[in-house]
Amino acid sequence: MKLYEALAHEISQSILDGVLRPGDRLPSVRQACTSRNISPSTVFQAYYVLEAQGLIQARERSGYFVSVSARSLPPEPDAASLPDEDAVHLDVSERVFEVLKSTMTRDVVPLGSAFPSPLLFPMAKLARMMARSVQNLDPWATVDDLTPGNARLRRQIALRYLIDGLHVQTDDIVVTNGALEALNLCLMAVTRPGDAVLIESPTFYAALQSIERNGLQAIAVPTHPREGIDLAAAERALERHRPKACWLMTNFQNPLGSLMPDEKKRALVKLLARYQVPLIEDDVYGELYFGDKRPTPAKAFDHEGLVMHCSSFSKCLAPGYRVGWVAAGRFARQVAQHKLTTTLNTSAPTQGALALYLESGGYDHHLRLLRHTLARQQAAFMESVARHFPEGTRATRPKGGYFLWLELPAGVDALHVHRQALAQGISVAPGPLFSAQPDFKHCLRLNYGHIWDARVDAALATLGRLVAAAQY
Amino acid sequence: MKLYEALAHEISQSILDGVLRPGDRLPSVRQACTSRNISPSTVFQAYYVLEAQGLIQARERSGYFVSVSARSLPPEPDAASLPDEDAVHLDVSERVFEVLKSTMTRDVVPLGSAFPSPLLFPMAKLARMMARSVQNLDPWATVDDLTPGNARLRRQIALRYLIDGLHVQTDDIVVTNGALEALNLCLMAVTRPGDAVLIESPTFYAALQSIERNGLQAIAVPTHPREGIDLAAAERALERHRPKACWLMTNFQNPLGSLMPDEKKRALVKLLARYQVPLIEDDVYGELYFGDKRPTPAKAFDHEGLVMHCSSFSKCLAPGYRVGWVAAGRFARQVAQHKLTTTLNTSAPTQGALALYLESGGYDHHLRLLRHTLARQQAAFMESVARHFPEGTRATRPKGGYFLWLELPAGVDALHVHRQALAQGISVAPGPLFSAQPDFKHCLRLNYGHIWDARVDAALATLGRLVAAAQY
Repeated sequence: MKLYEALAHEISQSILDGVLRPGDRLPSVRQACTSRNISPSTVFQAYYVLEAQGLIQARERSGYFVSVSARSLPPEPDAASLPDEDAVHLDVSERVFEVLKSTMTRDVVPLGSAFPSPLLFPMAKLARMMARSVQNLDPWATVDDLTPGNARLRRQIALRYLIDGLHVQTDDIVVTNGALEALNLCLMAVTRPGDAVLIESPTFYAALQSIERNGLQAIAVPTHPREGIDLAAAERALERHRPKACWLMTNFQNPLGSLMPDEKKRALVKLLARYQVPLIEDDVYGELYFGDKRPTPAKAFDHEGLVMHCSSFSKCLAPGYRVGWVAAGRFARQVAQHKLTTTLNTSAPTQGALALYLESGGYDHHLRLLRHTLARQQAAFMESVARHFPEGTRATRPKGGYFLWLELPAGVDALHVHRQALAQGISVAPGPLFSAQPDFKHCLRLNYGHIWDARVDAALATLGRLVAAAQY
Repeated sequence: MKLYEALAHEISQSILDGVLRPGDRLPSVRQACTSRNISPSTVFQAYYVLEAQGLIQARERSGYFVSVSARSLPPEPDAASLPDEDAVHLDVSERVFEVLKSTMTRDVVPLGSAFPSPLLFPMAKLARMMARSVQNLDPWATVDDLTPGNARLRRQIALRYLIDGLHVQTDDIVVTNGALEALNLCLMAVTRPGDAVLIESPTFYAALQSIERNGLQAIAVPTHPREGIDLAAAERALERHRPKACWLMTNFQNPLGSLMPDEKKRALVKLLARYQVPLIEDDVYGELYFGDKRPTPAKAFDHEGLVMHCSSFSKCLAPGYRVGWVAAGRFARQVAQHKLTTTLNTSAPTQGALALYLESGGYDHHLRLLRHTLARQQAAFMESVARHFPEGTRATRPKGGYFLWLELPAGVDALHVHRQALAQGISVAPGPLFSAQPDFKHCLRLNYGHIWDARVDAALATLGRLVAAAQY
């Protein structure tokens, strides 16, 4: 355990034990440095982690205080899901489409949205890069930037892998229209109609829809709200169904927010390699960590080119630009081929603008701000959930991303809550969206990626009341 | 027959009859006006048509002259293809990918390319619009511009339909990543694995690949190089195979350049309606006509919402921007749904830039220039083919677009020519790319959309020699 982790752990224990009580002031940074003989940055890191966990709050010019609700945060859900272990032919309902549409209007409080607030991104700087990109656009770039994509952008992406300690060849990277296209292309590259595909339960609904559209069978594997997919169950499923692919999220899973520990990632990659099953790794939230280091992708443990690592700039830099990519290992050629015959290529000016932005430096600075903002918003959001939701509610505490997963008290119907909330101008993402089976009826995914303000607090109060009323 | 058509017909007859001989000067515009009591614009239109047909040539400051090769243009191919009438399970080869890749390097003369020269487009003005679009981009546009797409752009597209005499609701328009994505989404919306789909023979290779990828069966229908798909054969195929969709190009078909006459389009729409088979109409070349009026899409004759009209700005305004659309009639909702779960949406800044461009006026002016350039390039290209290719070569005379389709003398293997040409730095698109069956082995598609110059002329001379040598 690192110094700052030890300090954070110690303080959180004091809070849970009641030694430090809601409203108490924490030692100032200077006091803590002196008393423990550690550096100010270590103290800041510890306080930052505690803030992200909702346990403490900064008050301007007065220091850090134990959150009012610190002891009364809802407990975390603790059990992995128990999906049916049979293969399932999907029939994802119209409902997903309906719910999605409902989150796309500005006048709704977008707790059901899949996107963080667009106000969190450096739109002005991106605009300058875009203007520069098109002013200097060599007309032949429209030919050169064809799939697999703009060479400078692919080099920048490869450089970021390198910084994170992964060795990815520029040639293995295919630029796509967002990560969603990357995921779909990967699925096309390694499956044929009738094949089985391992997925998490609950899972990102687009995975369900891709599987349905491609005439594949979904094998849902239990997934723990903190640590991700259940490996023993995954192994049973591999043995029984011989799937042609596994599609999952290793870091800050949507909707759970779960984060697979490194050892588990390593074991997963090894397990899949034994069965020679390709992994389609969706890692779009990986950059949005609240700790001190980017969580490792499963791709880092891949020695056979079996892992296709998909990500994008949509969630962490440039929403609406629609630029993602896949580092597709041994499948890079097939992926590029499918891209050429489905959407041909990704917008040349947009690719150029992102290459310029990354070359200009400043991306890491932006990311640090963004992570800090999301961590603070999570804390505020969590505290509000604690205040407004009835006893019996459980909530995850993701260490990154911008989704909370709530288990509502037994018997509460999330679809009912969704309809009632929408009538009051609030969107939520009800649990049943995230499974092809009738699961998660009492669950909600909430988005804390929007600017925290009184309107969001009021929306959570309304939601809490609706949930409480739905218990009876 | 209109006045200018009558004049053009009369002159072309004189040329073919030998009354006017190669090198002869045509009457000046003023002379023709006076002698026939017609307006200068009528004369210009007639000369323009003749120029497009390669029969006459303008020489700067000296007027119009009968082309040197006017009497010796290669004859047009005249028979529709005779594909196997059975359903075919596709296995489109790696070869398509290989040939495509070979056209994507700058140092090759790109006669095999699918794109016109990027130098023909108003890149500077587009750049200004892009800069303005992003500078004023409301961050929430990244949410608002989600599928079905930017409202202002969709309105501009609907306005263009209106100008062309089609009534298309803005709500039926879904913006896509180029027409290719639109076509793929349409296919997904109306088929399930195992279904049959009617296509042309020869056909755009991406159609073959989509059909293969989606586990569908292709039914190839004979297609005439001048007038498009054979309706009697289409009716037999409808009766026998009960396909779930028909996918074809009505205007300046790729690769043939064929143009379906209006009456044939009307009959096709009626025929498909009788079987309730949706038409996926690929009309990306429709704006590139050399005559006086945009050819009508089949969509114009559709009263049931069964025609999905797909087009884009990639071939006529903004290559590399990747913005297309579909007017999807009764399938608009399903198409949007598939888009949401495959690529989510189309780049917001790019959509905004095109909306601004269209609103600014000037698109029609650009199109007139582009059409004129392409028509001139066709004439020069055609004349060069006539000079350089051996007896027994046939060549289409498309009335728009930028592709020529050549039937080489019997026994010449186009794949062999392709390989030999590539070794000399020239790409071509060999006929077998355009069929799932072993057809069109002696055919080539050539692109005349690149600036006409000595290099292109020399490449055609080389090609002609290769073809001549391959005869023996």
